[in-house]
Amino acid sequence: MIYMDNAATTMPKKEVVEAMMPYLTENYGNPSAIYQFANISKAAIAKARKEVADLIHVRPETIYFTSGGTESDNWVLQEAFHNAIRNGIKEPHIITSRIEHHAILHTCQSLRELGCQVTMLPVDHNGLVDPRAVRDAIQENTVLISIMAANNEIGTIEPITEIGEIAHRAGIPFHTDAVQAFGQIPMDVSKMPIDYLSASSHKIYGPKGVGFLYINEKQKTKALLHGGGQERNRRAGTENVAGIVGFGKACELARNSLEDRMQRESNLRDYMINRLLKEISDVHLNGDPIKRLPNNINLSFHGIEGESILIMLDMRGICASSGSACTAGSIDPSHVLIATGLSPEEARESIRLTISDTTTKDEVDQVVDALIEITGRLREMSPLYS
Amino acid sequence: MIYMDNAATTMPKKEVVEAMMPYLTENYGNPSAIYQFANISKAAIAKARKEVADLIHVRPETIYFTSGGTESDNWVLQEAFHNAIRNGIKEPHIITSRIEHHAILHTCQSLRELGCQVTMLPVDHNGLVDPRAVRDAIQENTVLISIMAANNEIGTIEPITEIGEIAHRAGIPFHTDAVQAFGQIPMDVSKMPIDYLSASSHKIYGPKGVGFLYINEKQKTKALLHGGGQERNRRAGTENVAGIVGFGKACELARNSLEDRMQRESNLRDYMINRLLKEISDVHLNGDPIKRLPNNINLSFHGIEGESILIMLDMRGICASSGSACTAGSIDPSHVLIATGLSPEEARESIRLTISDTTTKDEVDQVVDALIEITGRLREMSPLYS
Repeated sequence: MIYMDNAATTMPKKEVVEAMMPYLTENYGNPSAIYQFANISKAAIAKARKEVADLIHVRPETIYFTSGGTESDNWVLQEAFHNAIRNGIKEPHIITSRIEHHAILHTCQSLRELGCQVTMLPVDHNGLVDPRAVRDAIQENTVLISIMAANNEIGTIEPITEIGEIAHRAGIPFHTDAVQAFGQIPMDVSKMPIDYLSASSHKIYGPKGVGFLYINEKQKTKALLHGGGQERNRRAGTENVAGIVGFGKACELARNSLEDRMQRESNLRDYMINRLLKEISDVHLNGDPIKRLPNNINLSFHGIEGESILIMLDMRGICASSGSACTAGSIDPSHVLIATGLSPEEARESIRLTISDTTTKDEVDQVVDALIEITGRLREMSPLYS
Repeated sequence: MIYMDNAATTMPKKEVVEAMMPYLTENYGNPSAIYQFANISKAAIAKARKEVADLIHVRPETIYFTSGGTESDNWVLQEAFHNAIRNGIKEPHIITSRIEHHAILHTCQSLRELGCQVTMLPVDHNGLVDPRAVRDAIQENTVLISIMAANNEIGTIEPITEIGEIAHRAGIPFHTDAVQAFGQIPMDVSKMPIDYLSASSHKIYGPKGVGFLYINEKQKTKALLHGGGQERNRRAGTENVAGIVGFGKACELARNSLEDRMQRESNLRDYMINRLLKEISDVHLNGDPIKRLPNNINLSFHGIEGESILIMLDMRGICASSGSACTAGSIDPSHVLIATGLSPEEARESIRLTISDTTTKDEVDQVVDALIEITGRLREMSPLYS
């Protein structure tokens, strides 16, 4: 098998699983209990919190563990809305973009049903949000601006520093969904105008089912999930100790390897893109060629359904995807590609290949060779292509 | 170490961890992806869903995996409120009890701030909710009744069938927080008037960080966490595959052992309670002596702080708790014991011992002997006791 769907999920590192094991077995104490046995779990969470925080250069006290990026995104948006309602703002306004993950877009849609106003900003053909458009969208009742750090489908890295500065000049909190960017590109959040940041463990070789929300010390955000006093009263529920420990280890490994990984992956990525653009005709690269995640390749093959390519890749043991895994199987064309100006037909002609830190040049060559053959055969059969 | 805090959390079974391992390592595919590799994860979740459903005799399609009991409780309550708001009910009303877990009570408090009316029913001195009080509390704007199946601190098993029937006669959905009851006592939910049921994996020898909400087919409940189409569009976020698989295995084991465990644990429980009541003076059993979880012992020792007992037990390697782990370390006396009529002083004189299916008679005897010695010494030193 050649796995090229690392934006959907990654294989947990051996060290990650090893770090988790004691907390799935003998060290099973509930961290909230007061006996010494529970302190083992409590200390393990504290260590993980520091490892997570170190990766984005923030204080451990600003990290709140959640069940994943989706919960973190929901938390920020829902609480921004409810906090405004509690403060007497009748129709709070949220600014976001059309290419956000559905964890943002569908949450915004559900808040609309409760009376929230939402502006979903357009993007350019590379998927970039224009900071000036953010500025122009600000209203008196704007309570949150949420723009992703990097897009999950096309890998475009957004100008979040500029956007965050605009938000802060207007006195509006800024959230970034960094599920794809976290641990893949350097982020010194201590020096960035970010109030909230969502991230997930399983995108950086950690276990599924755990993530965090970074909350800047200045923000008085209440809990989304109420109950026990865990996470300093901001996220109730017995901690997923093993998951959190695994996430911490994944962050430690990610921090130590960040520079090398970026270099290695972006070289492989560009090698793969260049071979595909050169050796297959009528191919179009989606997303920004430069401001791009090191592991992302997203291409449209004129005249061929992406779905057909994926099936034929799968028959050769190659895992790839069309857009996000969260909507795979959906017949709708990618909302991200549509936002970049592609027609529904063009959007359906696309596939996403996302490499990992263990992807080899040989694997890349095998996938390119497979794609040359597959696209050739499909085009021969296609009435759409001539 | 003697672990007698199994209501706080349990040690995952060896078979549970073994079942999880492949999904933490080689079978890491995202279940939402369309290639064959992802089907391994998808099939594993389907199998787990069936095992979970079988334990309470419902259809797998009614089980929605969450990050735990707290999320499940929050989901039901928050969505009952929001659904009512969307339907134009200005001040929806929820009925619950004073002895619910904080995942219910604190969620109700947060909904109050958004305009929700909440009735928190009293209980009798054994911790029982009176079904007639539920009936009398129903208002025209009541949108949900939520009463726990069994209490986490005192083990009292509530008359949820009677309460559910009252709810249904009034056309109101009924939710039960079954985090403590699930897998500990038989529940045939297919024959019970239950619309929603919350449960957690780590209370029944499964991993932390996973739980479920049962939603009766008749209910049109929307998601609390929005995003991808996971869990049939009702709970977004990449599935915690390993956690779900572990939960499924724990349910399978729990179903096969249920009768034996109940018999064995309730025998040990009664043996322990009888020895303690007989061999230590001025001891009071909290909770119902009959309608009681098989693993729960909760006692007040007149004249002694429960906290002091716990510290001295801990020094002997015995893990026990005062009330719920989620509020351990809190200086407030247990809201559950207060609701049963204890004074704050009496409530502070209590400890909870919760046994597991591997607790031995020898361990019980050791803990009883330790308690005889500890309470004797503490009373000698106590100005409160004479």
